[in-house]
Amino acid sequence: MNAYKQLEARQKRMAALGNALGILNWDQATMMATGAAPARAEVMSELSVLRHEMTVDPRMGDLLDEAEAGDGLDNWQSANLKKMRRQYIHATSISADLVARKSRLTSETEMAWREARPANDFATLAPMLEETFEILREEAAGLSQTLGVSPYEALLDGYDEGRTEAEIDVVFDDLEAFLPGFLNEVLEKQASAAAPKPLEGPFPVETQRKVARQIMEIIGFPFEHGRLDDSHHPFCGGAEGDIRITSRYLEHDFLSGLYAIVHETGHALYENGLPKEWRGQPVGEAQGMTLHESQSLLLEMQAGRTKEFIGHISPLLAEAFPRGDAWEIENVMKHYRKIERGLIRVDADEVTYPLHIILRYRLEKAVLAGDLKAVDLPGAWNEMMQNLVGITPPSDVDGVMQDVHWPAGLFGYFPTYSLGAMTAAQMFAAATTAEPGIFPGLAQGDFKPLFGWLDKNVRSLGSSLSAGDLIEQATGAPLSAAAYKAHVKARYLDA
Amino acid sequence: MNAYKQLEARQKRMAALGNALGILNWDQATMMATGAAPARAEVMSELSVLRHEMTVDPRMGDLLDEAEAGDGLDNWQSANLKKMRRQYIHATSISADLVARKSRLTSETEMAWREARPANDFATLAPMLEETFEILREEAAGLSQTLGVSPYEALLDGYDEGRTEAEIDVVFDDLEAFLPGFLNEVLEKQASAAAPKPLEGPFPVETQRKVARQIMEIIGFPFEHGRLDDSHHPFCGGAEGDIRITSRYLEHDFLSGLYAIVHETGHALYENGLPKEWRGQPVGEAQGMTLHESQSLLLEMQAGRTKEFIGHISPLLAEAFPRGDAWEIENVMKHYRKIERGLIRVDADEVTYPLHIILRYRLEKAVLAGDLKAVDLPGAWNEMMQNLVGITPPSDVDGVMQDVHWPAGLFGYFPTYSLGAMTAAQMFAAATTAEPGIFPGLAQGDFKPLFGWLDKNVRSLGSSLSAGDLIEQATGAPLSAAAYKAHVKARYLDA
Repeated sequence: MNAYKQLEARQKRMAALGNALGILNWDQATMMATGAAPARAEVMSELSVLRHEMTVDPRMGDLLDEAEAGDGLDNWQSANLKKMRRQYIHATSISADLVARKSRLTSETEMAWREARPANDFATLAPMLEETFEILREEAAGLSQTLGVSPYEALLDGYDEGRTEAEIDVVFDDLEAFLPGFLNEVLEKQASAAAPKPLEGPFPVETQRKVARQIMEIIGFPFEHGRLDDSHHPFCGGAEGDIRITSRYLEHDFLSGLYAIVHETGHALYENGLPKEWRGQPVGEAQGMTLHESQSLLLEMQAGRTKEFIGHISPLLAEAFPRGDAWEIENVMKHYRKIERGLIRVDADEVTYPLHIILRYRLEKAVLAGDLKAVDLPGAWNEMMQNLVGITPPSDVDGVMQDVHWPAGLFGYFPTYSLGAMTAAQMFAAATTAEPGIFPGLAQGDFKPLFGWLDKNVRSLGSSLSAGDLIEQATGAPLSAAAYKAHVKARYLDA
Repeated sequence: MNAYKQLEARQKRMAALGNALGILNWDQATMMATGAAPARAEVMSELSVLRHEMTVDPRMGDLLDEAEAGDGLDNWQSANLKKMRRQYIHATSISADLVARKSRLTSETEMAWREARPANDFATLAPMLEETFEILREEAAGLSQTLGVSPYEALLDGYDEGRTEAEIDVVFDDLEAFLPGFLNEVLEKQASAAAPKPLEGPFPVETQRKVARQIMEIIGFPFEHGRLDDSHHPFCGGAEGDIRITSRYLEHDFLSGLYAIVHETGHALYENGLPKEWRGQPVGEAQGMTLHESQSLLLEMQAGRTKEFIGHISPLLAEAFPRGDAWEIENVMKHYRKIERGLIRVDADEVTYPLHIILRYRLEKAVLAGDLKAVDLPGAWNEMMQNLVGITPPSDVDGVMQDVHWPAGLFGYFPTYSLGAMTAAQMFAAATTAEPGIFPGLAQGDFKPLFGWLDKNVRSLGSSLSAGDLIEQATGAPLSAAAYKAHVKARYLDA
């Protein structure tokens, strides 16, 4: 067996461990009895360590060298080999000691965050957070050298391979110039409009569960290759060929729960549409988090909120939860068009959301560069929040302590949320231009025209192209905020 | 780290893979969408191969030699080391080629059996079955040399370590002399007795599920460390510290479904009672299938069918499924005391069951010795069935083709069912003699007195003793059919 084929065999085995971990993780969140948690943690830790050892096995390095020196690989195989090398670099550029320190410290800091948050006690958290930042600086410095990119890009690379700060800045600078003024305009317009007819609870949970499943069936969730279950936090997980999404249901809130399911269904359909012949290989995996988020947001925020699709599902909703004529399309759309200056990212609407992300992006870059200390974060946060969103958090609970990402040691993760939203808008615009059948399809609950475009231009490509190249090839232009801006203008000002 | 500690670390990792496989297997039977089956099969196969490679790793042999040459191990560690050596012998005594041929051939033969069975076509199955037998002869010959036991014992060793043919013969010869005559007596007595008041369906499945859970709670199934779900065939699986049992419910048949759950709960409580400090090590595992089956049958056939326990649960059953006074203790007991000359092992009552096993034991020994060919099995089967149970199968579907075991290449497995039944009777007799609180406890749904005895004498011992030694230590006598004979006499003749 030549070196490349040997690498494929090794990857297949690592993927099997990854798939097993995916199901174990799903099971832990949905099925497992609580008393089994310590035993499960041990099993998952052993499997993770085993997979890591396979990744950093020196023989991998030899095989990679050998395969790269050879020839005769087709485009996909070459892309696959490139991904393997990237993973190898990520796994081996950092010393085992640093990995161990980071793992220990971030779990401690995350635990400290869980305690400090309800007490609004940032002062206690700050020193541990600073230690975590110090580790991240060390990690970024090491990776940055091997990858030949900036320290921030080195961390970003773990979530969105090859993404550059320059690309992000083009988008975020544009948004920062546009959104605050736009937000004023929208709020002014909304203040003068009549309130929508109420769509209030209770929405019985069992009925919500049934409706969620119906909507997933309409969209085309592959129930022969996956499941829907309950968990505390919605997620899309499972394994290759076996996509498990979860949701939770609040009796007083139906619409946001419904769209959480549409969101996860978008993730699921991306996973399910990845090239089956490349399962178990890096090139067959989803291409990073910006693209993943673009696929969930394309369903949740673009296709799922067109008047065509709302019109298709509103009779179903009206039957499940009778509220007179409040389910009329325009009224439903008024509900989810509600824009607010909010403090909390996860509750933010699509207009203010990018501002939350820009704030985090600017701050974590300053932290990484050593220009900002943990202890100074609350002040910097609150000031920037006022500048960008126009409000100041009354406490750190609603400010710097709201997200788990930094205590958990995740830097470079936040930008992918908004890059995903920009990508979703740009792709939906390109798709609906290229395929006139998409809107009429949505009006009948037929996603085939849209999914035909997505299958061809996104899902079936796996990781064979970088996210940037894929977006450009699919939409004819590099990623920008233009489509998103046009989208929010049309939805919030022109409508 | 010394050799023994290194072996422990390796075992822990193999156990993690085993536990992951346990959950994946459970998920496959209960949760997984059907379309995910091929992907799941690949994942499970990769993990199994990985575990096998760890087992046969030559370094294991070196470490075993080194650890065995050392000293300073306590009793449990020594027992652990002995188990590791035994597993190593089993995994390495057979060539990789034989393992591969056996795996391929037995899956083909099992598939052929699935097709031949509905067509009652033994003639087509026979040649493949003979090939499977030939492989089993080869495997037994190889293992027999390394283990220094008879070829049949070599196969038996995979299910019930250290069990000898002599031990089985003592029990089975006794049963063969006793049961046919006893069966005549019981049937004569039953023929002259009045039929019990009927306990007929429909029993709504949802209510059965609820009652099953209630009964499990009464017995003490550890729901904080496990689950009950539905599957086609009831089983007890999952992982260490996370026991998953399953059942299925038939609307027309409640009692047998209920006792299937009590049976699986017995398996679950054995697993749950294994020594937690030895989790992940061979000595912390259940000690073979005879003991495992003894623990399920002790609940199902002994404690669960005492008039004390029936009396405790009959009000609950009467409330769930109102049938007038048919739930009175004596009437329920009449129902499950019904004895029949049946053709099918899995439907057999506790009196005829051992006869089905003796038949299989005699035949598979003859096959292994080369004294019986596959093609002659139907004739031999039918003749022995007539001699032992007193009826002749009208077709091979109800005869030699009823079980999957032989097509699947499982020889030496059958005896453990009846050795388990004998062990259950012997243990229950010993426990109730030693602990006067057991019967009063059962009358109040309190299993603590019984489980105190089982925890001390069985569960907490893991694999630190051989099954034979454990039984003798627990009951004061080597395994025999005496307690079982006394039990069936009391239940079916004296009652």
